[in-house]
Amino acid sequence: MELHWLLPVVLITAKLLGGAARRCGFPAVVGEITAGIVLGPSLLGLVELPAHGETTSPLLALAQIGLCALLFRIGLETDLENARRMIGRAAALGMVGMLLPLLLGALAAAALGVSLLPALFVGATLTATSIGVTAAVLEELEASASRAATLILGAAVVDDVLGLILLAALIGVSSANGAVGLALAVAVGQAVLFLVVALSLGRPLTEATLRLTRWTRSQGTLFALVFSALLLTAWVAKLVGLEFIIGAYAAGLALARHPEREWLRSEFRPVVELFTPVFFVLVGSAIAIDSFSTTSASGRLTLSLAGVLFVAAVAGKLFAPMAIPKLGAPPLAVGSALVPRGEVGLVFAQVGLGEGVLSPDLFAALALVIIATTLVGPLLLRRFWPTDPPLVA
Amino acid sequence: MELHWLLPVVLITAKLLGGAARRCGFPAVVGEITAGIVLGPSLLGLVELPAHGETTSPLLALAQIGLCALLFRIGLETDLENARRMIGRAAALGMVGMLLPLLLGALAAAALGVSLLPALFVGATLTATSIGVTAAVLEELEASASRAATLILGAAVVDDVLGLILLAALIGVSSANGAVGLALAVAVGQAVLFLVVALSLGRPLTEATLRLTRWTRSQGTLFALVFSALLLTAWVAKLVGLEFIIGAYAAGLALARHPEREWLRSEFRPVVELFTPVFFVLVGSAIAIDSFSTTSASGRLTLSLAGVLFVAAVAGKLFAPMAIPKLGAPPLAVGSALVPRGEVGLVFAQVGLGEGVLSPDLFAALALVIIATTLVGPLLLRRFWPTDPPLVA
Repeated sequence: MELHWLLPVVLITAKLLGGAARRCGFPAVVGEITAGIVLGPSLLGLVELPAHGETTSPLLALAQIGLCALLFRIGLETDLENARRMIGRAAALGMVGMLLPLLLGALAAAALGVSLLPALFVGATLTATSIGVTAAVLEELEASASRAATLILGAAVVDDVLGLILLAALIGVSSANGAVGLALAVAVGQAVLFLVVALSLGRPLTEATLRLTRWTRSQGTLFALVFSALLLTAWVAKLVGLEFIIGAYAAGLALARHPEREWLRSEFRPVVELFTPVFFVLVGSAIAIDSFSTTSASGRLTLSLAGVLFVAAVAGKLFAPMAIPKLGAPPLAVGSALVPRGEVGLVFAQVGLGEGVLSPDLFAALALVIIATTLVGPLLLRRFWPTDPPLVA
Repeated sequence: MELHWLLPVVLITAKLLGGAARRCGFPAVVGEITAGIVLGPSLLGLVELPAHGETTSPLLALAQIGLCALLFRIGLETDLENARRMIGRAAALGMVGMLLPLLLGALAAAALGVSLLPALFVGATLTATSIGVTAAVLEELEASASRAATLILGAAVVDDVLGLILLAALIGVSSANGAVGLALAVAVGQAVLFLVVALSLGRPLTEATLRLTRWTRSQGTLFALVFSALLLTAWVAKLVGLEFIIGAYAAGLALARHPEREWLRSEFRPVVELFTPVFFVLVGSAIAIDSFSTTSASGRLTLSLAGVLFVAAVAGKLFAPMAIPKLGAPPLAVGSALVPRGEVGLVFAQVGLGEGVLSPDLFAALALVIIATTLVGPLLLRRFWPTDPPLVA
């Protein structure tokens, strides 16, 4: 029963380094990711982010449950009226926040001598926001029900969908497959259809959970049924090519009018508290600090490449909100919330490496950039987030 | 991400059949075990109890987390004064409740022509109470803080420790190993030392969790630290040869004076609600209904063997409390709480099969008996549990 000692080690390290980060004025997420570096292959070698697609890691299962619960909770407390008013701006912001890092990243890579297709892939890797990291920091700021948070998460969903489409297109081009257009149309169609269906299921789902709960004569049934519904939605999201946490967020939005929503939120809290840190530790464990040794020539090249890409990655998200008229929230706060890339970027980079489009050096540089944005994003967000109540209300 | 659809299927089936059981006047656990039969290899083949010692099943990891959390919660709400007063009676009850099924089971098997060593093994398989099933039913009766519950769980811990020692002795004898005496002394010493150390750690652990929580400035830290402590205690229990849930129960007893115990109990509730049914589904999935076909001669033999052993198994626990003077609780209620064998008995039987002591027919009969006691125990408990408040207070 390895989990019986490994999970405590993960939790204790994450909570203590998270607390240390908090005491230094940083978000706890930064400390939890650092805990992953300490426990990961670079140092202690106790945990490792499982390969993409592996399904038998109990630690990963817990991490995903925690993250799904976090995104579901945030969806659940969303003010749907606000969301409706923000939807256009969120879509525009998601689009700009996807195009700007794509352009800046591809240009930076091309300027450093990378050829066109890999350069575009590098840009694409920098497009998708890590919804998980952003959501955790917003929770910590007690701002996840705010208008700005709805805007940010909406934009993150949009840039994720767009990033997915871009990835499909680049893989299609790189494998010289003729049917790129068709594959793209299918990908877009699936994603949009999924979101429309998931959001329209809210009312029947609310009814069904309430009725079945009454029938079983146990309030605990409601929690288990809602939890099941969110996992199934996450699973379908994954099936249509989206991230599973987008499914969990959609399930939360769909049930945002559930009469028991406050009770459900309080039931989900312990699950989030316990298992979300596992996710951040796994993300941190993917940081291989030894691949960036400054003593070798290739190490120095990787490092300088990473430096340039990092500037492109941060600038591309941070300044994107300034292009949106009547944003309704401080642009730098919104922009910094979109900076973290985390797990999504890592998946993109892994696909690029696997397809042979990205060289190992480029992959190492991208991994460093992604992790750096994941650490810097929360710091920027805390710096630019207004402490006055109006935004948080 | 198999878990994303499998866990919902498990949860929904368990909650609906649990609710159906409740509507028919049975405890929910009976419905949840039935859900395991439906989902298990006998019918749908969706879930399977992993082999003893397998550690990579995410479903099993969740089940164990749920069960540990359940036993920890029950330990946490124990009135330690009551427990101190009951300790002698619990030990005596545990001993009688272990000897009686051992004798009845071995005699029954011998009477049916089984030779001495396998007959003793059959008896030993019937000694250990399934703490998990009993605890869940007590929770459902809202009686887990009662004096009777403390007595029952104390006796269950004792018969589990004694059963473990008996198992070690029988394996020693069957493998004709000379050092049986030494192995037994080590097993007993380890188990007792573990319980003494675990229970004496309560005060320093309470202090440490409170201090670290203050230092990290987040109440969530307390939950994660306590959860870690209970998992580590469960892990050490497993290391010294006890069941891991005995470790979780000991951790709960050790922290029963924690100033935040009410808050901790409420934090653990959703975790218990969500993951304990997974355990019962896995237990139910071990029931292979097709191995008891009445059309074959060996099937009929197995069935009649099982019938006799079932009577011995139920009588051995049900009437054990009558041998204890001044029990302080209704003997039939206490006895029926000790009837379920569940996972512990299955582990014993698997060891016997693996060591070559039990024939496949004997194993099949024992598996049927164990499952039958697991289903009948909760029914008897509900039947004999007094509905008057005095006991529940």
